[in-house]
Amino acid sequence: MRMYDILRSKRDRVALSPEEIRFFVQGYAKGEIPDYQAAAFIMAVFLNGMTGEEMLAMTNEMLHSGEVLDWSDLPGLKVDKHSTGGVGDKTSLILAPIVAAAGVYVPMISGRGLGHTGGTLDKLESIPGFNVRLDARQFRDVLTSTHMVLAGQTGEIAPADKKLYALRDVTATVESIPLIASSILSKKLAEGIDGLVLDVKVGTGAFMKKQADAQALADTLVMIGTRAGKRVVALITEMNQPLGTHVGNTLEVVESVSVLKGEVGGDLAELSFELAAQMLVLSEAAQDLATAKQKVKELIENGAAFKKFQDVVVAQGGDPVALEEISRMPTANKTKVVNAERSGIIQQIDAEGVGVAAMIMGAGRATVDAEIDHAAGVVLHCKVGDPVDKGASLATLYYNDESKQAEGLARLKAAFVVADHGPAPTNLIHKVIS
Amino acid sequence: MRMYDILRSKRDRVALSPEEIRFFVQGYAKGEIPDYQAAAFIMAVFLNGMTGEEMLAMTNEMLHSGEVLDWSDLPGLKVDKHSTGGVGDKTSLILAPIVAAAGVYVPMISGRGLGHTGGTLDKLESIPGFNVRLDARQFRDVLTSTHMVLAGQTGEIAPADKKLYALRDVTATVESIPLIASSILSKKLAEGIDGLVLDVKVGTGAFMKKQADAQALADTLVMIGTRAGKRVVALITEMNQPLGTHVGNTLEVVESVSVLKGEVGGDLAELSFELAAQMLVLSEAAQDLATAKQKVKELIENGAAFKKFQDVVVAQGGDPVALEEISRMPTANKTKVVNAERSGIIQQIDAEGVGVAAMIMGAGRATVDAEIDHAAGVVLHCKVGDPVDKGASLATLYYNDESKQAEGLARLKAAFVVADHGPAPTNLIHKVIS
Repeated sequence: MRMYDILRSKRDRVALSPEEIRFFVQGYAKGEIPDYQAAAFIMAVFLNGMTGEEMLAMTNEMLHSGEVLDWSDLPGLKVDKHSTGGVGDKTSLILAPIVAAAGVYVPMISGRGLGHTGGTLDKLESIPGFNVRLDARQFRDVLTSTHMVLAGQTGEIAPADKKLYALRDVTATVESIPLIASSILSKKLAEGIDGLVLDVKVGTGAFMKKQADAQALADTLVMIGTRAGKRVVALITEMNQPLGTHVGNTLEVVESVSVLKGEVGGDLAELSFELAAQMLVLSEAAQDLATAKQKVKELIENGAAFKKFQDVVVAQGGDPVALEEISRMPTANKTKVVNAERSGIIQQIDAEGVGVAAMIMGAGRATVDAEIDHAAGVVLHCKVGDPVDKGASLATLYYNDESKQAEGLARLKAAFVVADHGPAPTNLIHKVIS
Repeated sequence: MRMYDILRSKRDRVALSPEEIRFFVQGYAKGEIPDYQAAAFIMAVFLNGMTGEEMLAMTNEMLHSGEVLDWSDLPGLKVDKHSTGGVGDKTSLILAPIVAAAGVYVPMISGRGLGHTGGTLDKLESIPGFNVRLDARQFRDVLTSTHMVLAGQTGEIAPADKKLYALRDVTATVESIPLIASSILSKKLAEGIDGLVLDVKVGTGAFMKKQADAQALADTLVMIGTRAGKRVVALITEMNQPLGTHVGNTLEVVESVSVLKGEVGGDLAELSFELAAQMLVLSEAAQDLATAKQKVKELIENGAAFKKFQDVVVAQGGDPVALEEISRMPTANKTKVVNAERSGIIQQIDAEGVGVAAMIMGAGRATVDAEIDHAAGVVLHCKVGDPVDKGASLATLYYNDESKQAEGLARLKAAFVVADHGPAPTNLIHKVIS
């Protein structure tokens, strides 16, 4: 088998066999196939697509290029959630404790933030002492004792995907559904889960800007995940304005705690509870969605979900008191408020704009190795559709670095559009695909 | 400007500006753009094509990436010919002396053979002493004194093309009309010529197997060459059976001399004279094609063309006597004859098969750095359409290396198809495009 012939087939829209996909993925992971041949391959995939068989083979080969966790000794079906990423999306911090509180194992491996979207690991590290760098033994211990774990990779998960992703990033081949789907699924299936709920975001603040693209990705993820033998559900959800009101690491932990304690509702609570309910159905902890939603409600109301979050914080070395005494977490020295320049209805809060403002102040990373400021971020005082009076505070910028305040504030201000009328109402959850 | 954005545009079928093409070609030539980005780029070009403007910019940028020869101090229009390559194609050795004998300067830069097709430089080196490695001063001296020169590159001609060609070769992106056209034209225009006659081969022994592909390439070459300010004519010519009867380096020199002396006719003479006549028209040495053909005939009949070939052999250090005393050139120790296994008409002589047989015996290179045997090759004793009796000799294999004889002979034998009827008659020259 030669990479040249594989390139030729992909170029000519001849479907590749599983053996050819294996040859490529294994060869590339081992460094036997050079970057330039892999680059030509992914551009050909970008332009000519892949069949379901090819995507399944890509997923399986990338999955098996590294460590695959195994929890078959633990009872029940293990589930997780994956989101394609948005601004203010802290649902993982809420749904994992809910599902674990229902007795379902959630072995959640998360990443760090890049660009205008945050990362679960960064958010967790706002909690003093919280250790996301667990070794395999610690990971298993935490999962076994608390039914959940929130950590980074233990061993080497899907190294072929890691290498290929870096190449896609510099060859303008990121936005390819076959490549996105196989990348997401290979990493998530390596967690050793039985079921996966996917939150495919669509809108101005999301990777997928158009409904049709989000739909195509969701359909593909469900198809490939199912063919890989897993229970998979995908939700297409709106990401035009930030999810919830808090953006930035400490701030997002604070908001998550409020939702877990049942203190606040709104879009963040609605989506987190929906995703948690879907996970309960997938894991057979609930017979149907209505029962699952009732169970979620109970676990919030009886304090079990918040208690579970406290437990996992303790299990991973964190300070549980910080969850209720914010001052124990990194907090900002300075704040600036953005005020409404006119009265009217909030027509738009550009999610990407808010995310970039927070990133500029240090909440996120412009480059992979940038340092972040856990205290920095944004709190919204209104959501799209709310009426506001001239001079009312729209949002507060939290920061420590005065030198970037003007730029951050300008970006935050520009994210708001106040008009005579609000936009047509839309649904938070557009569609559920299973 | 960023290569990432250029890749994105090409991927999305957005035409690139000349500045973007320059950024890519110059950046790649200098090593500032890595192979993997260039590989993704050429795969995107392969699949999405290029506009005329883009191809013109590619040609110009690759042309100016290296040395461009300048003969503006020599009188008249300088011309050359380029062929897309075939088996037994030695027209350069015939037409260059004809055109030079008419007083037109022919600064011909040639290459070496690879695979089943031969290279002009290898053929010339069959002539004892013939030096194809001229420096810039020698190149100019030979051209000035004899009106022609047959050599390899003096300086660095189109280094960007050289680098890109090597990458195309390993990424399955060779067969792309925009990339082929810009590659051919950038190298040929670097010779400092005013006019170019292109011989685009079509058939089983050619790079282009289908008429439509050959037509598309010829059209593109003429369009881009003309837009680059040159006089360009393209002929689409047949390459199913070998051109002429001799294949292999010494053998092809021998056949070329026969044609130059007016001793043999057939397809080789016909095509060589046609191409030479087109060059005379392009260079304004003849008013029209009929006049040009008459002039070619005269230059053969009065011995001027052969005399010119002898002159250039002397000017480049070769032994002119060898042109008429074959034994002074490398000659084969051994021969094997392929006989007809039945009576009938020659229906097919597979050009590629004959070329591969000759290559196996040492006439060509399987890899770039292989050594060749100038004496090895094949002489055909018949052409397609000829009647043969059972047992008649179809071809002779010339060789020195006994260990490869069985394989070479088998390949040669398999190239012949004798049947009850010959194929429908076809034209050697399918079309002339200008």
